[in-house]
Amino acid sequence: MNRRRFLKRGIVLGTTLAAGAPARAQAPAPDDPSKVLGGPMRPYGERSRFEEPVRMKSAAAKTDEMGGNQTPLADLFGIITPSALHFEVHRGGVPDIDPRKHRLLVHGLVDRPLILTIDEIKRLPATSRILFLECQGNSQAEWRAPTGKAVQQTHGTMSCSEWTGVPLAVLLREIGVKKNGSWIIAEGADATGNERSLPMAKAMDDVLVAYGQNGEALRPENGYPLRLIVPGWTGNINVKWLRRLTVVDRPYLTRMDGVGQPTLMPDGKARQLQFVMEAKSVITFPSGGQRLPGPGLYEVSGLAWSGRGLVRRVEVSTDGGRTWRDARLQAPVLRFAHARFSLDWRWDGREAVLQSRCIDETGYVQPTLRELVRVRGLESHYFNNAIQSWKVANDGNVHNVHA
Amino acid sequence: MNRRRFLKRGIVLGTTLAAGAPARAQAPAPDDPSKVLGGPMRPYGERSRFEEPVRMKSAAAKTDEMGGNQTPLADLFGIITPSALHFEVHRGGVPDIDPRKHRLLVHGLVDRPLILTIDEIKRLPATSRILFLECQGNSQAEWRAPTGKAVQQTHGTMSCSEWTGVPLAVLLREIGVKKNGSWIIAEGADATGNERSLPMAKAMDDVLVAYGQNGEALRPENGYPLRLIVPGWTGNINVKWLRRLTVVDRPYLTRMDGVGQPTLMPDGKARQLQFVMEAKSVITFPSGGQRLPGPGLYEVSGLAWSGRGLVRRVEVSTDGGRTWRDARLQAPVLRFAHARFSLDWRWDGREAVLQSRCIDETGYVQPTLRELVRVRGLESHYFNNAIQSWKVANDGNVHNVHA
Repeated sequence: MNRRRFLKRGIVLGTTLAAGAPARAQAPAPDDPSKVLGGPMRPYGERSRFEEPVRMKSAAAKTDEMGGNQTPLADLFGIITPSALHFEVHRGGVPDIDPRKHRLLVHGLVDRPLILTIDEIKRLPATSRILFLECQGNSQAEWRAPTGKAVQQTHGTMSCSEWTGVPLAVLLREIGVKKNGSWIIAEGADATGNERSLPMAKAMDDVLVAYGQNGEALRPENGYPLRLIVPGWTGNINVKWLRRLTVVDRPYLTRMDGVGQPTLMPDGKARQLQFVMEAKSVITFPSGGQRLPGPGLYEVSGLAWSGRGLVRRVEVSTDGGRTWRDARLQAPVLRFAHARFSLDWRWDGREAVLQSRCIDETGYVQPTLRELVRVRGLESHYFNNAIQSWKVANDGNVHNVHA
Repeated sequence: MNRRRFLKRGIVLGTTLAAGAPARAQAPAPDDPSKVLGGPMRPYGERSRFEEPVRMKSAAAKTDEMGGNQTPLADLFGIITPSALHFEVHRGGVPDIDPRKHRLLVHGLVDRPLILTIDEIKRLPATSRILFLECQGNSQAEWRAPTGKAVQQTHGTMSCSEWTGVPLAVLLREIGVKKNGSWIIAEGADATGNERSLPMAKAMDDVLVAYGQNGEALRPENGYPLRLIVPGWTGNINVKWLRRLTVVDRPYLTRMDGVGQPTLMPDGKARQLQFVMEAKSVITFPSGGQRLPGPGLYEVSGLAWSGRGLVRRVEVSTDGGRTWRDARLQAPVLRFAHARFSLDWRWDGREAVLQSRCIDETGYVQPTLRELVRVRGLESHYFNNAIQSWKVANDGNVHNVHA
C-alpha cells in the first residue's frame, strides 16, 4: 500500500475528468468568499448549489411512476449512498403516507395476531446495519451487448445505507408462529399492493422491519415509514411501505415472485423464487463516459458486494482479464455491505481494458458474462453479476465494452 | 442479549413517547395510500413532509451567522448522522464557494509549494472513514447546573459521518516538509479566515483533506468543498472551507487556538492547544423532554465515543450511579466513531436516575461532573465529558439533573 510520492510518480493533474452534467445557470459565487458574510444556519441542510449528481431514470422506466432511477455511482465516495441519491424502483409511484395513520398487521398462521403503530415499532429493540440493496434488474440491459454508457446506467440500481429497525424474528416470536407457518407474504401500501413471499428461515435469521435509513426516517421512495430489509437478497423482497405480514404454509407466487420477474433459461423454463444477489463488483473510476487526461498514475476505485456475506477479495485486471492483481479493500469490510476497493495503476497511454472481480467468503468467484451465458442463455436478463469491462481508448476516453 | 418475548415481558405500547415539534399544518395524506397513484421519481430526494426533526440554534448563538446549531440526537438512529442534520458551528456564516474557483495552497517550510484544484485533489489516493465530530463546546452549559432541557441541547454539538478525502500525509510527503517544519497552520476561506495550529505528528498520522461526507460532497455548512478531518480531535481544528496549509516551526496561538477558547483552571491559568475529545457517552432514550407512558420494559439506547480511539465498554446505571450494568454495543464498533449502545430496563414506575459511562481502549473511564470540577474548577466550560444524568419522574417525564 505504497501511497507515497503519488504525485511525483506521475499522477496527471490539470484537467477535468468527470463527464458531469452541464453547469446550471446560476449566480456567480464571490471570488474571495472570505470577504463577505456567509449564509445563515439552517434547520435542515441542503447540498451546495454547485453540486449536480442526480438519479437518472433507467431506460426501462415507462412513466415517472413505473420503473426506476439509478444512483450516480461514479460521483460518489466511500460506501454510504446519500439517501437523496439512493436508487428507486416502484410500479405505482411513491405513496404519500402519514405515519400516524400507518399500521402494520401481522397475522395468518400465528397464535396472537397483532396490529402495531410506527411509535410502537420504534419502542421495540432496534438494530442498525450497513447493507447494500441491489435490484435483480441491475445490469439487465448488458446481457446481449454493452448498452449503458456510464456506470450509473450499467450498475446504478444499487445503493448502500445504514438501516435501522426491529429484527423480524422479535416480532415473530411475540406473535407465535404456528408449526405449519413456513413462509410470509409481505405486502406494501403502494398502489400496486406489492407482495413478495419470504421463507421463514430467512425471516427468523436477519431480516429487519426497518424505519431508519442513514440515521433518520426512511425516505419516501425507500419505503417511508416502514419496509423490510432482507440482507443480501434481491431489492423487491425488501418490501417498501410495509403494511402487512401474513404467515402462510407455502410461497404464493405473487406477481413479483416470479411470473412478472422471470429468469428464462435455455430450456424454456424460468427460475422462480430466486433471492440471493451473488458476488459482484464494478470499477467506478475510471468508468464509462469519463476521460483520462493523459498517461500517468491513477488510483482505480470501485465497489464490491455479495449476497452471501463478506467480500473476501477483489482482483483487478488492466489487460482484459489476462492477468489479475489484488486490490486494496477499505476497512471496515462488512457483511452484506458495499466494500470499496482501489488499486494504483500506471496508464501507458495505450488501449487498456479494465475489469474487477469479487471473491466472497464462500469462495465464489464473480463470473465473466461468457460463463453466465453458457449456463443461462441469452433470454435471461435478471441477476446479471458478470464482470464489467471498461475500455480506456488511447485518447483517454472510457467505454463500456464486452471483453 | 435476550430479546425474546420483549412485548410479553411488558413493553408498554399505545401512547406517544417523543416530545416532538408540533405537527406542521399540511394537507392530509390519503387514508389508504394504495388506492391512489403515488408520486413520481425524483432526481434528488427529500425527506417525508411528515418528518420534523431539525437542528436548533444553541443558546450561545448570537446571530444566524455567529454560533452553532445542534443535531437532534433523540430523533436519530444508528451511528450515521444525516448530513442535513449534522451540527454547524461558524462565526462568519457559511461561505458560498464555487468549487471550480477554489484552490488549496500548501506552502511554508516545504521543498515544493503546491496549489491544487478540487479536481486534482479528487484524483489523489482517497480514504473513507466513519468518524465522529464533536465541538469542544458540546455540553458547555452543563458545568454549573443542568440547563439543557433535551439531549439536543446538552449533547447535540456532535455528529458522525463517513468522511472521504486524501490523507494529509500523502500531500505532505509530496511537498517535502523541511526539518524544522513541526506545525501546520490550517486556514479556512470563511469570513473569519478561521485558523488553527495542528501538530505535524498528528498531520502525518491520520488527518484527511476531505471532500466527501456520507457519500457525496461535503455540505456547505460542513466545509464545502474542502475541510480537514482530524480524527478524535476538537471540532474547530477540523478546519472547514480549507484554503491554505502553512508548514511552520511552532504553534501560532491563533484566536481559535486559545485566547478565544479558554479552559480556565482553578489557579487562573488556561489550558491552550487542547485537542483530544476524551471518552464520553450519553443516553438518547429515554432522555430529557421525553415521557415514558408507564411502567414496563424499555430498551435504553445511547451513543458513546472517544477521541483516544475505540470504545471498549459502556456501562449504564438506572439508580444514579450506585450500580452499573454492561450495555450491548452495536457492531461494528469503529475507532473514533460513535458507538450505539443499548440495555433492557424494566421501569417499576418509581423515580429513577439513568446514567451511562464510556470506557475506552486506554482504560480511561468517563468521569462524573464532580470529578471534573474537582480538577478543573467551575470557570471551565469547554471539554465537558462528564456523565449525564436523566431523572425519570414517577409520572414518566424525563428531566436533566445533576446527580
